[in-house]
Amino acid sequence: MTGRSHYASEVTEALIGKTVRVAGWVHRRRDHGGLVFVDIRDRTGLVQVVSEPDKPGFAALEQVRSEFVVSVEGVVRARPAGMVNAQIRSGAVEIVPVAVDILSTAQTPPFNLAEANQVDELLRLKYRYLDLRRSELAQNFLLRNQVLMAVRQFFHREGFWDVETPSLARSTPEGARDFLVPSRLQPGLFYALPQSPQIFKQLLMVAGFDRYYQIAKVFRDEDLRADRQPEFTQIDVEMSFMDQEQILSLMEELLRYVFAETLGVTLPPFPRLSWHEAMHLYGSDKPDLRAGPPLVTLTDTAHQLDWALLAEAPSVVGVVIPQYQPSRKELDQWVEEAKDLGVGGLIWIVYGDTLRSSAAKWLKDEGLKGFAEASGLKPGDTLLVVAGEPSVTYPAAGQLRLAVARKTERLNDGWHFLWVTQFPLFEWSQEENRLVSAHHPFTMPMVEDLPRLETDPLSVRSQAYDVVLNGTELASGSLRIYQPELQARIFEILGLSAEEIEQKFGFLLKAFQYGAPPHGGIAFGLDRLLMLMAGAQSIRDVIAFPKTARGTDPLMEAPSPVDPRQLEDVHLRIVR
Amino acid sequence: MTGRSHYASEVTEALIGKTVRVAGWVHRRRDHGGLVFVDIRDRTGLVQVVSEPDKPGFAALEQVRSEFVVSVEGVVRARPAGMVNAQIRSGAVEIVPVAVDILSTAQTPPFNLAEANQVDELLRLKYRYLDLRRSELAQNFLLRNQVLMAVRQFFHREGFWDVETPSLARSTPEGARDFLVPSRLQPGLFYALPQSPQIFKQLLMVAGFDRYYQIAKVFRDEDLRADRQPEFTQIDVEMSFMDQEQILSLMEELLRYVFAETLGVTLPPFPRLSWHEAMHLYGSDKPDLRAGPPLVTLTDTAHQLDWALLAEAPSVVGVVIPQYQPSRKELDQWVEEAKDLGVGGLIWIVYGDTLRSSAAKWLKDEGLKGFAEASGLKPGDTLLVVAGEPSVTYPAAGQLRLAVARKTERLNDGWHFLWVTQFPLFEWSQEENRLVSAHHPFTMPMVEDLPRLETDPLSVRSQAYDVVLNGTELASGSLRIYQPELQARIFEILGLSAEEIEQKFGFLLKAFQYGAPPHGGIAFGLDRLLMLMAGAQSIRDVIAFPKTARGTDPLMEAPSPVDPRQLEDVHLRIVR
Repeated sequence: MTGRSHYASEVTEALIGKTVRVAGWVHRRRDHGGLVFVDIRDRTGLVQVVSEPDKPGFAALEQVRSEFVVSVEGVVRARPAGMVNAQIRSGAVEIVPVAVDILSTAQTPPFNLAEANQVDELLRLKYRYLDLRRSELAQNFLLRNQVLMAVRQFFHREGFWDVETPSLARSTPEGARDFLVPSRLQPGLFYALPQSPQIFKQLLMVAGFDRYYQIAKVFRDEDLRADRQPEFTQIDVEMSFMDQEQILSLMEELLRYVFAETLGVTLPPFPRLSWHEAMHLYGSDKPDLRAGPPLVTLTDTAHQLDWALLAEAPSVVGVVIPQYQPSRKELDQWVEEAKDLGVGGLIWIVYGDTLRSSAAKWLKDEGLKGFAEASGLKPGDTLLVVAGEPSVTYPAAGQLRLAVARKTERLNDGWHFLWVTQFPLFEWSQEENRLVSAHHPFTMPMVEDLPRLETDPLSVRSQAYDVVLNGTELASGSLRIYQPELQARIFEILGLSAEEIEQKFGFLLKAFQYGAPPHGGIAFGLDRLLMLMAGAQSIRDVIAFPKTARGTDPLMEAPSPVDPRQLEDVHLRIVR
Repeated sequence: MTGRSHYASEVTEALIGKTVRVAGWVHRRRDHGGLVFVDIRDRTGLVQVVSEPDKPGFAALEQVRSEFVVSVEGVVRARPAGMVNAQIRSGAVEIVPVAVDILSTAQTPPFNLAEANQVDELLRLKYRYLDLRRSELAQNFLLRNQVLMAVRQFFHREGFWDVETPSLARSTPEGARDFLVPSRLQPGLFYALPQSPQIFKQLLMVAGFDRYYQIAKVFRDEDLRADRQPEFTQIDVEMSFMDQEQILSLMEELLRYVFAETLGVTLPPFPRLSWHEAMHLYGSDKPDLRAGPPLVTLTDTAHQLDWALLAEAPSVVGVVIPQYQPSRKELDQWVEEAKDLGVGGLIWIVYGDTLRSSAAKWLKDEGLKGFAEASGLKPGDTLLVVAGEPSVTYPAAGQLRLAVARKTERLNDGWHFLWVTQFPLFEWSQEENRLVSAHHPFTMPMVEDLPRLETDPLSVRSQAYDVVLNGTELASGSLRIYQPELQARIFEILGLSAEEIEQKFGFLLKAFQYGAPPHGGIAFGLDRLLMLMAGAQSIRDVIAFPKTARGTDPLMEAPSPVDPRQLEDVHLRIVR
């Protein structure tokens, strides 16, 4: 007996009196009052089967244990009053079997699926196929599937072509470390797994494909941090003949479509902040809008004080905590935290019955009032103040704002998207003692900043943009330079030699000489997006077969030793 | 001026009098009668822009050359009578510009796009972004995109989950050669790029995902033949609790859906042949149903002759060529071809006014009549006959049937699908001097053949199936063994030691001990399917950035040398 007529969760009151066939795993068996109750589980949920002695299926049901695979044909009936289980969709009915087939037996699983959260993750990864049976985890893959489809429906509707780009690509000396793939046919040469389809998608624009997207696997051989994976998935997009405004509004529409289709959530228009605003209002280029009001710049107010420490500080920045009166212990903790973040210290002002402060002695009444007024402090609020170089105070205040929000449990739910735009085009690399591209060297500068390109490069802003959700960077993109002359100026500023340029970017620059359209794009981190949408704790919970922080797959035992002949084939020897 | 209001092909008579903006490449410029005519090309096709001296855009249009990128805003008007071009969708109208922007200039391309067919493929691959501008090639990627979407729509509708499986997998000693990826974090160990997601998709069935599909990139480090690529794309499918009949009918529905949605073609139900029937009727496990009638087995007829050569032949097989009277020269060619195919010789019988034959002397009148009758020969037909061992005659006759069809140009168009089922479970490997799996060792035998598993393994048929289109194998699949005891019997017959089994398949067998559902699946070669659908000559014409037969990408120059430090990082040294 193969096949099913219904999934477990589809067996509901509408089917009472009908014969159905279900198939799945034994979730639980109970013997009670001479009857045997078996919950059958499939990917949709549970349905209860009940039989009594000498009735069909009873003997088989008496034999089954957890995780056996069974097929049950039977008649649906209403459960007795008082036995209804409102927790599950089939909870008002049960199946009285006509026939039961035991399709597979099962050993006792190495961990209890119901208590998997308390089980070592390594063990769960080793038995991933069991862990994935947990509804909590399996539902993430239903969501992933729905999100993938919604993304594709949107791009299809908007005339984007899904184009597959190579996985066996060329190693590029920039960026993160490449995974290498030795060539057998060409001894001593290597492919690299792509860190992104960046070059290919730009070439597709030169080819006139006009609108490209791809849900692409990309690779980075980095030292793995908690939420990094050596391979991950990117929603990769590129389009021609569109300006930044058109791109932003279309990509915002994509996210709005995906959230509506999969979560039933209607997203409001995304606020936009320039990078400069984001840094001054949130001390971060990925602000978490949930974490309370923006920072307040108190530098001008401080400069009117006769307390030199603040009056002469290059910047003074405040974090307002609305309607919260911290304990002395909390305040002391935040002072410590501020020191850890690199600012000399932290002044607090608590607006209780009066204005109390750790620096009341120096600020005096006017100072306290001045700060309270400048930061819009209301009775019941608290203000934390740091002073120092702006490159330190804003990020530190931004971190404090987040720490306070976490501790006061004010990171309320919701989907707080925003665009951050106008990123700096260049950064100064201490390590290399030269200017480097903040995004990548093909990023288009803002037109109005072009005159300062050579004279004040660090002040030049780019037509680059990020999507931020609840403090996490979800996507990053830019308009690209398509004019060879402008590209040459950028390379000059980056101090690249003609040889380096030719070696690293030769094929792209050459392509641009044959008629390149204005173009730009973006790439979304799909795993991270899904982690947030699913409310998962880790991206490993939204990847079917993830790797550990050491890059291993405990299930398949990869990476593994290989046959010496395989190494000979690719002309390599291991060096220990 | 960015953005467009319409693609080139959308500018039609309905827009006469309206202002439009188009953007794209200069396909052709002509100066005629003082006017300048420029065809603008985008991915949809062409639209003509025309201007006269002193009118807006004239100066710019006078400057443009082929492949410049331009943006044109202008008013649509009807072309003068007699100037209508019925070849293109915008051929009844032209645009009179209000403004023309030259967005990019272009050097003269290294080959003439209009004559690309005569250009060396290596040059075209080096400038792939130019080759892809040709409508002939670009349309393949529109089709590819449509097919991908239709496949996904179908699976989504049918409740399949799109699940991504790892690209950094474990090297498996079976099958083709793996591409290896050295691990940096674990010196001396390697990942392998997957040859298929086979194990992962079976594990997903054990996890209860029930219906899985993925459009997956897979890799094989083989010596590349004409139409092989080191990386290619597979429509990979697996489902639980379904029998072979249900799987076949659902997958047939998939193809019917895709052909209807993308080509507007309604496919009739697919004929089904067992492997045995296919071999006897077409001498091939991938019959081309277009190539004329099936083979005729004439062994019984031959055994009644008193001509020992045929009367004692183990098999005698005929190819009927309906309504065709070959020249003597053609007949001689086919005799030669038969010898090349390993049969001793070929007898022909031509049914003209009378029955003529190369073997009239030995066959005599009765023999000729007997063969004509047994093969249903009609006046005007020709019969080719070969004799010998069945393992030689049927394949040779199958090849002759195809050769004749090609030469007589009888390979008419159309979509001739069929299922081939009941493949042998085992084959005898001369090389290894043992039984090997014909498909893979997890393939489910046919239930009625199970009693012969140990006693006559070569006679055991499997629940494996192929989809064949016009003589090309498009997909291959099977039901899988999910019972550990049966799997153990198969391994025993294959002569695998307990160690080998544990090392090669340990994790899958272990998974099956925790409750495996009955399951089966299939994988379609997407590139090959697209090649046939597009009527392309090569799979390189349906892959955006293909590699040469040496596995190189002439555009990106991959594979390439890498920095010595990169090799140190992965603990390897090149051995020449």
